[in-house]
Amino acid sequence: MKLYDGGRAPNPRRVRVFLVEKGIEVPLVPVDMAGMEHRGEPMTSRNPLQRLPVLELDDGIILTETVAICRYFEELHPEPALFGRGALDRAMVEMWQRRIEQNLFFGVAQAFRHIHPAMKEWEVPQIPAWGEANKPKVLEFLAILDRELADREFAAGDDYSIADITGLCALDFMKPARIQVPPELTNVLRWHEALSSRPSASA
Amino acid sequence: MKLYDGGRAPNPRRVRVFLVEKGIEVPLVPVDMAGMEHRGEPMTSRNPLQRLPVLELDDGIILTETVAICRYFEELHPEPALFGRGALDRAMVEMWQRRIEQNLFFGVAQAFRHIHPAMKEWEVPQIPAWGEANKPKVLEFLAILDRELADREFAAGDDYSIADITGLCALDFMKPARIQVPPELTNVLRWHEALSSRPSASA
Repeated sequence: MKLYDGGRAPNPRRVRVFLVEKGIEVPLVPVDMAGMEHRGEPMTSRNPLQRLPVLELDDGIILTETVAICRYFEELHPEPALFGRGALDRAMVEMWQRRIEQNLFFGVAQAFRHIHPAMKEWEVPQIPAWGEANKPKVLEFLAILDRELADREFAAGDDYSIADITGLCALDFMKPARIQVPPELTNVLRWHEALSSRPSASA
Repeated sequence: MKLYDGGRAPNPRRVRVFLVEKGIEVPLVPVDMAGMEHRGEPMTSRNPLQRLPVLELDDGIILTETVAICRYFEELHPEPALFGRGALDRAMVEMWQRRIEQNLFFGVAQAFRHIHPAMKEWEVPQIPAWGEANKPKVLEFLAILDRELADREFAAGDDYSIADITGLCALDFMKPARIQVPPELTNVLRWHEALSSRPSASA
């Protein structure tokens, strides 16, 4: 198999961090996102949604969507479990993965894509008012997350999971999106520091 | 356990359709979303994100997020499998669930929330330009989905899955969002018809 990778973009990074945490090596094929290679051929034939990452299996089957690719590797290599163990824990990981994804990761991405001048050709039409509207929503969610993290080490409980990977990539993406974690959210800052100090963070 | 339900809103409906397909009965507690009951107490204590549905277990543990609640029931009652069977099939269901959710379900929801006058107090600030920007993206995705559905009966393959439930609820939500499936997308229309004719569609 091979993984078509998108360099610094946050979704390809989520899969790379996941693979390092799992201890799985997959050959990476770099795709030049800045040069819009993912929107031309042959990438569009591989993923008509023109997004990365894309996993191609040895028999040519294509798998896209960050979390679907991660789940495939979780099924093949269950240890260490990054989607939880047992019914309730798996549901909790799914809940926090989705909460962080929808309220933090997507919000930061919308702010970046709809405000940053470099995104003008990527996000058509670019609607700065929508980008700005996401910033207070991101901060509101971070305040909720900060209260949750007062009682536990990781996003979904005592164990590191895919919810933390989504959190790490979202928090790091706040820099180009020009949103800052307020200094009073000490639990979020401690969590970010802990995630950033793992070897997987450099993936 | 009990499920705090939000009536006609599309996310609560996704869980109700899922439960009917599974043959699981869970006591429903209606929450008056029109009266903003989900944004007051005690619902905010149950879900600080102030969204529905919310599942409360007998020991008081709270589970939120539509897909997390569905996955919990899938773990407890594996048959019929609505998240796929085996590594690759589960990944494919996850891929299509997410593709349909992000490109159709969320797009339709954004168009509804940012344009419909009744949503003015719900979506602050309401940004009609953003609502309108979602409409062509929804139609673009439906055209891609139509080509995919030429070869298979359901969204993720030959078996009905949670990806179809997300699709059904999104397609039905297009009516209040005032977006129409173009008549040339015959595969999407056939799929919508098939999903609508199942007993679960009335949930």
